[in-house]
Amino acid sequence: MIGGGIGSTIGEVHRSAMRLTDRFDLVAGIFSRNHKHSLHTGLQIGIDPNRTYAGIEEMIQLETVRPDGVELVVIVTPNESHFPLAYAAIDAGLHVVCEKPLTASLRDALDLYKKTIASRIVFGLTHNYSGYSMVRQAAAMVREGSLGTVRLVQAEHAQGAGALPVEFTEGIPVPWRSDPEQVGKEIVVADIGTHAHHLIRFITGQEVEEVSADLSTHVKGRKVYDNAQISLRLTNGSRGALWASRVATGNEHGLRIRIFGERAALHWDHEDPEHLRFCPLDKPPLTLSKGQPGLSSAAQATQRLRLGHPEGFIDSFASLYHDFGDAIQDRGDRNSLPDLESIFPTVVDGVYGVTFIESVSRSHKANGAWTETSVSLDK
Amino acid sequence: MIGGGIGSTIGEVHRSAMRLTDRFDLVAGIFSRNHKHSLHTGLQIGIDPNRTYAGIEEMIQLETVRPDGVELVVIVTPNESHFPLAYAAIDAGLHVVCEKPLTASLRDALDLYKKTIASRIVFGLTHNYSGYSMVRQAAAMVREGSLGTVRLVQAEHAQGAGALPVEFTEGIPVPWRSDPEQVGKEIVVADIGTHAHHLIRFITGQEVEEVSADLSTHVKGRKVYDNAQISLRLTNGSRGALWASRVATGNEHGLRIRIFGERAALHWDHEDPEHLRFCPLDKPPLTLSKGQPGLSSAAQATQRLRLGHPEGFIDSFASLYHDFGDAIQDRGDRNSLPDLESIFPTVVDGVYGVTFIESVSRSHKANGAWTETSVSLDK
Amino acid sequence: MIGGGIGSTIGEVHRSAMRLTDRFDLVAGIFSRNHKHSLHTGLQIGIDPNRTYAGIEEMIQLETVRPDGVELVVIVTPNESHFPLAYAAIDAGLHVVCEKPLTASLRDALDLYKKTIASRIVFGLTHNYSGYSMVRQAAAMVREGSLGTVRLVQAEHAQGAGALPVEFTEGIPVPWRSDPEQVGKEIVVADIGTHAHHLIRFITGQEVEEVSADLSTHVKGRKVYDNAQISLRLTNGSRGALWASRVATGNEHGLRIRIFGERAALHWDHEDPEHLRFCPLDKPPLTLSKGQPGLSSAAQATQRLRLGHPEGFIDSFASLYHDFGDAIQDRGDRNSLPDLESIFPTVVDGVYGVTFIESVSRSHKANGAWTETSVSLDK
Amino acid sequence: MIGGGIGSTIGEVHRSAMRLTDRFDLVAGIFSRNHKHSLHTGLQIGIDPNRTYAGIEEMIQLETVRPDGVELVVIVTPNESHFPLAYAAIDAGLHVVCEKPLTASLRDALDLYKKTIASRIVFGLTHNYSGYSMVRQAAAMVREGSLGTVRLVQAEHAQGAGALPVEFTEGIPVPWRSDPEQVGKEIVVADIGTHAHHLIRFITGQEVEEVSADLSTHVKGRKVYDNAQISLRLTNGSRGALWASRVATGNEHGLRIRIFGERAALHWDHEDPEHLRFCPLDKPPLTLSKGQPGLSSAAQATQRLRLGHPEGFIDSFASLYHDFGDAIQDRGDRNSLPDLESIFPTVVDGVYGVTFIESVSRSHKANGAWTETSVSLDK
Repeated sequence: MIGGGIGSTIGEVHRSAMRLTDRFDLVAGIFSRNHKHSLHTGLQIGIDPNRTYAGIEEMIQLETVRPDGVELVVIVTPNESHFPLAYAAIDAGLHVVCEKPLTASLRDALDLYKKTIASRIVFGLTHNYSGYSMVRQAAAMVREGSLGTVRLVQAEHAQGAGALPVEFTEGIPVPWRSDPEQVGKEIVVADIGTHAHHLIRFITGQEVEEVSADLSTHVKGRKVYDNAQISLRLTNGSRGALWASRVATGNEHGLRIRIFGERAALHWDHEDPEHLRFCPLDKPPLTLSKGQPGLSSAAQATQRLRLGHPEGFIDSFASLYHDFGDAIQDRGDRNSLPDLESIFPTVVDGVYGVTFIESVSRSHKANGAWTETSVSLDK
Repeated sequence: MIGGGIGSTIGEVHRSAMRLTDRFDLVAGIFSRNHKHSLHTGLQIGIDPNRTYAGIEEMIQLETVRPDGVELVVIVTPNESHFPLAYAAIDAGLHVVCEKPLTASLRDALDLYKKTIASRIVFGLTHNYSGYSMVRQAAAMVREGSLGTVRLVQAEHAQGAGALPVEFTEGIPVPWRSDPEQVGKEIVVADIGTHAHHLIRFITGQEVEEVSADLSTHVKGRKVYDNAQISLRLTNGSRGALWASRVATGNEHGLRIRIFGERAALHWDHEDPEHLRFCPLDKPPLTLSKGQPGLSSAAQATQRLRLGHPEGFIDSFASLYHDFGDAIQDRGDRNSLPDLESIFPTVVDGVYGVTFIESVSRSHKANGAWTETSVSLDK
Repeated sequence: MIGGGIGSTIGEVHRSAMRLTDRFDLVAGIFSRNHKHSLHTGLQIGIDPNRTYAGIEEMIQLETVRPDGVELVVIVTPNESHFPLAYAAIDAGLHVVCEKPLTASLRDALDLYKKTIASRIVFGLTHNYSGYSMVRQAAAMVREGSLGTVRLVQAEHAQGAGALPVEFTEGIPVPWRSDPEQVGKEIVVADIGTHAHHLIRFITGQEVEEVSADLSTHVKGRKVYDNAQISLRLTNGSRGALWASRVATGNEHGLRIRIFGERAALHWDHEDPEHLRFCPLDKPPLTLSKGQPGLSSAAQATQRLRLGHPEGFIDSFASLYHDFGDAIQDRGDRNSLPDLESIFPTVVDGVYGVTFIESVSRSHKANGAWTETSVSLDK
Repeated sequence: MIGGGIGSTIGEVHRSAMRLTDRFDLVAGIFSRNHKHSLHTGLQIGIDPNRTYAGIEEMIQLETVRPDGVELVVIVTPNESHFPLAYAAIDAGLHVVCEKPLTASLRDALDLYKKTIASRIVFGLTHNYSGYSMVRQAAAMVREGSLGTVRLVQAEHAQGAGALPVEFTEGIPVPWRSDPEQVGKEIVVADIGTHAHHLIRFITGQEVEEVSADLSTHVKGRKVYDNAQISLRLTNGSRGALWASRVATGNEHGLRIRIFGERAALHWDHEDPEHLRFCPLDKPPLTLSKGQPGLSSAAQATQRLRLGHPEGFIDSFASLYHDFGDAIQDRGDRNSLPDLESIFPTVVDGVYGVTFIESVSRSHKANGAWTETSVSLDK
């Protein structure tokens, strides 16, 4: 992994995702340009300090000669460094997973493309929204013809987090994401607009052919655009709009897409990612859920849990395991506290639960008579 | 881990949760009563075959003498075996994580309680719903007095999965969960009702004092109850109902709770777990979201991602990593396919993305003139 | 009309409903026990003062001899007076529309029943929720077998308006609805519980056979019950619960019903009355909307507007007409004000609208060039 | 009223709205260009046949000399006739209520404007969406500064009803609304786009200054545009988009607007018209409801019912009154039928309701014992 030092959200997301799949071991990295911070991160996450490198050349040189050297390089650094890092990795015959946008310029993007084709390595770009089951279901339904010809697309990735002049703190330089020198004035398109753009392409299988764009800045002093209103013409004559914004006050994540075809429409909203609304012509709309019988094989392949269990279900267990871990480190007296004071359920809760079951059974046998549920726990 | 062989949903959930926290290593187990299946499971998930044991006694005997022996036993077996397994583990001084319900009888539950208190090990019971951020937020708000005195509780765990006689397949014995001999007729209460019961206690901090229960069976031939309608009287005079069902046709997971206090109410629904509806007296209702500023420290502690990123966000990355893994195993020619045929985004998508950014910028500079976005990729 | 003086919400609702149907003329009444207030009301709503009567006997005596005498008596008085008023009207051969509950005692109710049967007049009871299109659709779907055998019912009418001790104002007697002497301690059941009870019967076609009830009071000093938790056993063995409450803090109107059958379920919520959720076994749930093709004839018969037009659509026009009426009374200078200051749209808004259409057309013809929309209005 | 013959939806909506306000009497009209149909309509709705006229000149001539002549002319005819009809009415000193769009050309619109200003009559344009309480609330909140400076607007009126080639029926001429000769190719903007445009202006108090538009047709053979994607620049530098469509397959009415300001955003959706979502910066979003304490006086003035009672509440009573009317015409034997067969509640339902209340009371007094609710009705 290159980038993703302690404090980086996206680095931790990549690491968690790899652990969830249980198919990758993170064994080496350059976690920060600051080598000290990089070493610190490596230690925190269990990397052999000899495999926390100072730069990409060193990493490639040493890893490619090890019998257990890395096979895949994950690049989660700022946009402008994607090109040289990915280039070097491909050159060394390593697979690449890279954060979006691919590069800062089209020329660099085309170079990486040619390099990849020539080398036949695997190059993954983490437009992660295409990993959601219901996005894959949407793409499958378009391909199977459930919508007929696609006519209209409405996509938006409109966040509220930039509604205030968040980049200005006295005495601190403007962060790279708000500096037009480093990321270009069009960063709102590069950073979030490209997610909506990829979703349109992934779901409809169509390309955007022409755009008519209006970029604007709504926060005083801001040096980059923070809003983009783009009209679209797609292949086959379909039309639409893409709105990307950092000043959609009050919005959370704000990624949403609607596809209208001849015979039906699909609506997907990232704030409710496990449902897909399917609206056929002249019939009641249906709400498709992850895990329902009858979904496409593409959707089923990404489903880890049964119907009605949101992805967060695993996280709810992880929260408990986190607490169990804390308690074990503090070894021992947590579970003797009055149960409701304990943040996690213990044997005491188990006793109350069994008491409940037994008293329900007794009340039922007494034709619904009110029945006490008390239990006395002498500690 | 005891139980959780390949094919067990809950075993895999526990393992995924442990990997997500990155604090536990699964090193030993008895994954099935069938030792062959147990060994097979162990190999699949990377357990040293010498540490896949035939029984609890053997496991304890050998693990407790190893310097790197297990510290924590995770029990995910059928209900009736929880007691002997947990008892043996505590006896050996090991921490325990156990699936609910704690035991099949109240006497056993109390025995485990006393044993735990005496031993001062950590005993965690996976009523996992209390691990959701917004459930912890709800509990914190009740404790802080945001609702005033709690007056009413309405809880339900009503699933649709048992609406058909799913347990009857010709020539196959009724599974343990539908056999009153093995699990008791009241299994609908033990299995899912206890989750709703624990949520009531966890959020309100009150105990159920009295119940008036009506159990019924709605599927012909079924030998256990599949519906429980229970009226509740709680401490402090609050009232309510708990409905547990396996025949709530069309429901998915169906766990939901509403708490009404003097000054406000809270609504939480497991099918939308990252929001909590807060309804104050005579004011507009608010929708609290995981990650919002101002949540309780208990809610913040379980939050892995920023506002607007559902827990499934990590899973969307995991889906891509899963595909990356497949592609790397097939080494090499995936990314030369036409991009939309590839299930995951590649360098080709990156090129299209950068093309889009550049054409948006050109259109804007030309005052919104329609601008082509095409790029030619000679392969 | 008997009752419904100026200030009575329900009286005005009945009058508006009659005007909407355009089939009834309100020509006589006893609008209050206070004859002065009654006369005042009559004058306000355009009743001939000779036909505003002091009592039911006088009204019947004089109206039954007029050639244009009343045919229908509408009773919107407090519960305890329903019986004598309805009795007298039936006795005189007049049709009756009566607010619920029918009477204060079962004996009186049975008397009215026998009297009605004997007289063959039309007796309507305004359990108005059965007038909603989607409630009729639900009843039709159950009758047609879309759900299979009904197994479970969950109904609630739980309001928040009584969460505070609203009935106590210094120096003012407790209103009749909170006085157990006048309405019985069980008023929460009589007043709102009966609506949920009627909905269950209307939709399922089943009768409640047995109840197990728990009534409670949650506001200090209140003399009537303000919460009722009732377990139900219905004909054919179906089960369920009915919750009626005045202390469901933060709830608005709170009437909602769910019916679970063998093959599907239906959910209806009065706060979103024009939709009906239909959840078939193992298929995606559908949202039925008033006006959709394919609804039952019963639902179609109550539909005044096309799909997508909520009933409030007419009200939105009525709001404008109300403003038009005000402006005409103030005759004349409203529409010369700057348009946005006017509460209703005027010719000025029309000019801006036409300007918009024309500039859109010009921009489109200029291939999307940005085009001004200004118009100068010299007043 | 001019236009609105039997079969016209909008004519009936205007008449119902007038009846609801109880301030207007419809006394004269030209209900169709076909005089026979006009007379028929007049008779059906109770108009004196002498006051159903053949043309506007005749109507004005005869009505203006009557002491009880019309004061207000309501124009609900096709777009192109609005101008001559309104012109004639204003000329005669009559108030005018006119359907949108005001006229077919900007020149005519300006003429009407000048004429109106000179005459000082009241001229109402039925952009009815501004009559909804929550739309008025939104406008009031913007004016009061709850949003700070408005920055972005997203409006859409996108219907699905034109997704099929509905205008083509063999042997029948294309209806006026699909004939570019009669209504202009831009009818999708004139017909529905203007509603979204008026909402933007009404709520924000800003004017649209510049547009960049793309019009398109998605149904084969259709001669008018059926989709309009318009980027907007508003006064004060705010930006946005307006999407009007007849081919948004699966949409119902599809009118919706979102306003984003410096400090908060507002979302309103016509398919849920009685709620308004208010999303402040960095705080949980609130759902404002018609009737809540604390709304603006503008919103309160249009509220006919208490909190939790949707506008359709009156309609639910109207449905019952409609059935009562039918039953009275059929005089008599309805209420002797088994109650559940009757479409409306009768005295029988009243008896069951009172039985229910009494048995609930008995069960409660018996500490929740199951209590029968049966009643025997000997007919």
